[in-house]
Amino acid sequence: MKRLEECIVKYGKALNKDVLKVDAFLNHQIDPDLMMELGKDFVEHFKDTPITKVVTIETSGIAPSVMLGYLLHVPVVFMKKSKSKIVDDNVYTANIHSFTKGIDYEITCSKDYLAKDDQVLFIDDFMANGEACIGGIKIIEQSGASVAGIGIVIEKAFQPGRKKVEALGYPVYSQARIASLDKDMITFVEE
Amino acid sequence: MKRLEECIVKYGKALNKDVLKVDAFLNHQIDPDLMMELGKDFVEHFKDTPITKVVTIETSGIAPSVMLGYLLHVPVVFMKKSKSKIVDDNVYTANIHSFTKGIDYEITCSKDYLAKDDQVLFIDDFMANGEACIGGIKIIEQSGASVAGIGIVIEKAFQPGRKKVEALGYPVYSQARIASLDKDMITFVEE
Repeated sequence: MKRLEECIVKYGKALNKDVLKVDAFLNHQIDPDLMMELGKDFVEHFKDTPITKVVTIETSGIAPSVMLGYLLHVPVVFMKKSKSKIVDDNVYTANIHSFTKGIDYEITCSKDYLAKDDQVLFIDDFMANGEACIGGIKIIEQSGASVAGIGIVIEKAFQPGRKKVEALGYPVYSQARIASLDKDMITFVEE
Repeated sequence: MKRLEECIVKYGKALNKDVLKVDAFLNHQIDPDLMMELGKDFVEHFKDTPITKVVTIETSGIAPSVMLGYLLHVPVVFMKKSKSKIVDDNVYTANIHSFTKGIDYEITCSKDYLAKDDQVLFIDDFMANGEACIGGIKIIEQSGASVAGIGIVIEKAFQPGRKKVEALGYPVYSQARIASLDKDMITFVEE
C-alpha cells in the first residue's frame, strides 16, 4: 500500500537490520487518517470474505482494527497480553515467544467474545517470526470460530512469519512488505 | 451521553459497589460504531477549544481517541504503561497508583511526541480516583504542552477523581457519570 510505504520511508527508523521503529505513526503516536486508509485497504482486500468479527492483540493492532471494524460494522476484540499464567476457566490462552524481547508471554481472550459461528479477520501491526499471529490463530481455533483471513500492517518479509502461518493453511495479506532494513535504507518487496 | 448510558445498562456488569466491567463494548470487545459516536460527542463538547493532539493511556483509551483524532485530523499519542522504572533520557514519566489493582506503575511518553506548543485533549476510558488522569497531566505539563481539556468516557462520580483533577485547575467532561453501582442497579448522575 503506497501511502503506508511512504510513511515508513519518511517516519520509520531502522535501528538495525532487524528492528524497525514506527513509533511516529503506529506504535506510540498514531496517525488516525492513515489508520482509516489502512482500514479501507483491508476492506477492499477482503471484500469477498464474510467477516463477523475483527480480532487483534493489544496494543498497536487496536487502531487499524477499530477503523476496519467501523467500516464493516462488526465488533472488534483485542486479545490481552499477560506475563504470568492466567488461571481462569472463562478464557482461551496461548503462549507466545517474543524473539524481539527475548521473553515468553501469554495472550488471552474471554470465551464470551469468540463464538463457533464467528468468521474472524485477524489483524496485527507487525509480522516477523509469526509467533503472535500463530498464538492468535490458536485462540481462534480453540473457540471453534473460523479464521476468515489474516491482515498485517507491516510484514518483515525477510523473517519466516508468513511461511509458518501459510503452512497452517492461512493466507496472509500484508499492507507493506519489507524486503530488507538498513540504517539508511528500507526496501520493500516488489509485487 | 444517552447511547453510552444505554450500553452501560445493557452490557455493563457491576461486580460490586466499586467495579464496573464494560468488557462487552470498551475494555476487551469494542463496539466501533459506539467509538465513533463517542468521538463525535467529544468533538461537539470541545468544539470551541483549539486542539493539536489527542493523548491517552494504553490500552482502552485508544479506540475512542483514534476516532476523535480522525474527526479532528490531529495525531493521537498513547502513553505507555510499565511495571518497572524506565531509565531513558528521551521519555517523560509519571508514577501512578492503581487502587483497583493495588499496584504502582509508571506511564511514559517519548519526548518526540509532545511539544511546547501542543494543545492536548487528554482522553481516558475511566475516571475513578483520578490517579491515571493526574499522571497523564503531569507528563503533559513536563513537556510544556497545554492541557486543553480532559475527556472521560465513564466517570465513577462517587469516587474522588473529578474533585482532585478539578483542584488542579482542569475541568473534566465525562460522557457517562455513574452515581452508584450495585449488582442489580446502575444509576447515573442526573444532569
